[in-house]
Amino acid sequence: MEDDIRFMRMALDEARMAADEDEIPVGAVVVAGGRVVARAHNLTERLGDVTAHAEMQAITAATAALGGKYLPDATLYVTLEPCTMCAGALGWSQIGRLVVGAADPKRGYSRFAPQALHPRTKVTTGVLADEAAELIQQFFRNKR
Amino acid sequence: MEDDIRFMRMALDEARMAADEDEIPVGAVVVAGGRVVARAHNLTERLGDVTAHAEMQAITAATAALGGKYLPDATLYVTLEPCTMCAGALGWSQIGRLVVGAADPKRGYSRFAPQALHPRTKVTTGVLADEAAELIQQFFRNKR
Repeated sequence: MEDDIRFMRMALDEARMAADEDEIPVGAVVVAGGRVVARAHNLTERLGDVTAHAEMQAITAATAALGGKYLPDATLYVTLEPCTMCAGALGWSQIGRLVVGAADPKRGYSRFAPQALHPRTKVTTGVLADEAAELIQQFFRNKR
Repeated sequence: MEDDIRFMRMALDEARMAADEDEIPVGAVVVAGGRVVARAHNLTERLGDVTAHAEMQAITAATAALGGKYLPDATLYVTLEPCTMCAGALGWSQIGRLVVGAADPKRGYSRFAPQALHPRTKVTTGVLADEAAELIQQFFRNKR
């Protein structure tokens, strides 16, 4: 639990970097064997690429770092509930564990693709959820 | 309809390239204004990256080629029904039209994430479906 908070804080730092770059603030960190193997934040605006979500980049980076195609022994921390695309990618990656900050009732996979994850993936939700949600709300408030 | 067959044949050519590289044979082509703006095939093995499906690469390449983030005036041809991940990506891309070859009852989005596409995306299925399905069946027969 202490580790979960520590790694989610790192993911929140990534989300803040996204906000600083005028990207919707979502951050992700992948941990394996107690070590951070990937960290990423949303880059859809900078790359002009709708697939450049934090989780997609983190999965690609983590598999490159670990040298395999699958991530059964890794945990992905993400500040916002993954969308259908990212949950599908996490499903293919066979990630061992997924730790989520804030829920996303409008776009989150739990509503739109509830079977997207691999059946063996363990899921924890609501870790530092208020901080993650506040980051996003603040971002859109500043947009108005 | 003639155009659909012509562009699906190109997508099938891409799928054959994948098979030649020992990748699950799925190919995709993106067309805008009657012109091919992206073509891609599955590269998950070569890149060791579960997100490297034909459609994901085709979306990224097409948006780079067209210079926008969204693809409302483009059509994506793909030899196999997109998975949850790819359908989620197509949803974010707001692709104008999706043309599918063979259905994928085991992994296809129509079963697992039926709301993944953008509500304005028009969908055509079953174009050269037998050829696309045969490519995949042959690939797995050769694997045994």
